[in-house]
Amino acid sequence: MSILLVSKKRKFSSLKKHIQTIDSNIDVEIWPAVSHPDRVQLAVAWNQPENVLATFPNLRAITSLGAGVDHLVYDTTIPETVTLTRMVLPSLKQQVADYVLMSTLNILRHSHTYYKQQQRAEWTEHQPIEKDDLRIGVMGLGQLGAVTAKKLEESGFHVSGWARTKKELSSIRTYASGEIDHFLKEVNILVCLLPLTPETEGILNLETIKKLKQPAFIINAARGEHLVDEDLIYALDTDRIRHATLDVFTDEPLPESHPFWNRDKITITPHVAALTSEKEAAKLIVDNYKRLLSGMDLTHPVSKNYKY
Amino acid sequence: MSILLVSKKRKFSSLKKHIQTIDSNIDVEIWPAVSHPDRVQLAVAWNQPENVLATFPNLRAITSLGAGVDHLVYDTTIPETVTLTRMVLPSLKQQVADYVLMSTLNILRHSHTYYKQQQRAEWTEHQPIEKDDLRIGVMGLGQLGAVTAKKLEESGFHVSGWARTKKELSSIRTYASGEIDHFLKEVNILVCLLPLTPETEGILNLETIKKLKQPAFIINAARGEHLVDEDLIYALDTDRIRHATLDVFTDEPLPESHPFWNRDKITITPHVAALTSEKEAAKLIVDNYKRLLSGMDLTHPVSKNYKY
Repeated sequence: MSILLVSKKRKFSSLKKHIQTIDSNIDVEIWPAVSHPDRVQLAVAWNQPENVLATFPNLRAITSLGAGVDHLVYDTTIPETVTLTRMVLPSLKQQVADYVLMSTLNILRHSHTYYKQQQRAEWTEHQPIEKDDLRIGVMGLGQLGAVTAKKLEESGFHVSGWARTKKELSSIRTYASGEIDHFLKEVNILVCLLPLTPETEGILNLETIKKLKQPAFIINAARGEHLVDEDLIYALDTDRIRHATLDVFTDEPLPESHPFWNRDKITITPHVAALTSEKEAAKLIVDNYKRLLSGMDLTHPVSKNYKY
Repeated sequence: MSILLVSKKRKFSSLKKHIQTIDSNIDVEIWPAVSHPDRVQLAVAWNQPENVLATFPNLRAITSLGAGVDHLVYDTTIPETVTLTRMVLPSLKQQVADYVLMSTLNILRHSHTYYKQQQRAEWTEHQPIEKDDLRIGVMGLGQLGAVTAKKLEESGFHVSGWARTKKELSSIRTYASGEIDHFLKEVNILVCLLPLTPETEGILNLETIKKLKQPAFIINAARGEHLVDEDLIYALDTDRIRHATLDVFTDEPLPESHPFWNRDKITITPHVAALTSEKEAAKLIVDNYKRLLSGMDLTHPVSKNYKY
């Protein structure tokens, strides 16, 4: 019996150490140097190479090393009998909520402008945008979206939320899938926290953007594929979007030649809105591994008909 | 009877308009083009030139156009019979609290590093500093400090507060003047929201900084004179301070030649942590003006033995 850690880019030596600190008897293999493929029962995967997971004959479950599971759900080489789970660590939700709150405050207070002014020693004040003069719209009200929407509301923002099915969320105005136009037309800052599905891919496009209330802003902390890159650039150039804060991109790392890098109106962070703490992750992996070996249900399973 | 608006730099035409929108019968004079000095009974002052306020024989009250009143208290040319008041607008408190929260989150999430990376198209992740791994210390628990400390605590931070006299503030650990060493040694992010008095001038010096817990950071949103500039630079160069966020400076606008401008570890904003809304200010000025004319007490008077 062993646990496999697999990813195209991520180094796993420190996660392995955290797992074995909890229980030194657990066998941990790091792809591609796997000595006993037949002993692997649980895999922990993040941006795994294609076809790799199908090569472990006794694999019973795969855990995503994050809240997103599109890299697993859309990997058709994974046998249907394998259980998929994800990590919903409390710290991840708080991290995402803080990232969105911070990005929103930076928009209202013109942080990116002041940062540029500092480089040329320029002292010019700009009136902050007032909270009462705008509304934030959170797309996706799952584990991450709900916590984020509540956090924004507690910080004094007007918040609306949109999800596939209508959600009840204290005093937040919520909309269901078919009501998207009503949602968009009252929203200035559009925050994307949707899962990536065929229905949500490319949802941040020019048509969507045109329906937003002015002044309009975008924060994408979900997946790069939600955004149509060329539509955003067109919207920024035509002032339909004043500023965009992007944490995720279709190609990651974002290629050096990508036009996003040197746009004044775009703030780029390298997929850090929520970074899994390896210590917390190790605890959850060991717990699920023991559950698997004892025939118990795993925590945070992914539904078979996965949708947003 | 008239209201005088006086400042070295600030343009007041729009504030005058806001006052006269409320009551078009109110006479408003803008310094230096004052036609009837003898008719001035209320002055609204912000960084006023020295000796100016003493030249109005019938002046009865002066309102600071902000929460700070050091520019009035230390102007010895103002007759003692003149009442001093300040503006404690609810929006100012919220603005300061949000500025500090935003600056704190930007420190934890390495925003200044990501800005720099973006300019060279560099994609490198940095683990966020965890809230549980640090404590924020708010110096000054008056109108602004108390709201800020509470806001930080509601956002999940560990918060300590320090003020001249011991304050009770829900679950925030508070310290009185003499307990400053106990306060400093448990604090990583030092937030200065003190009023400027002879006791607080230069309080952000190397001796203070050395007592902070590592890693240490400074946010100054009070007055430039609280900080000893050369001590901060020395502390940054010797890594005693990792990053400083400064909104206020001894000379404002900060001179182009000042070494702060091009320091990587300093974030500069041009005194915008709290910008008085002219509309809100006008309401308060008109209210106090009417109180003055009817012989009633003014709102937000400054105590005769003004201290932090």
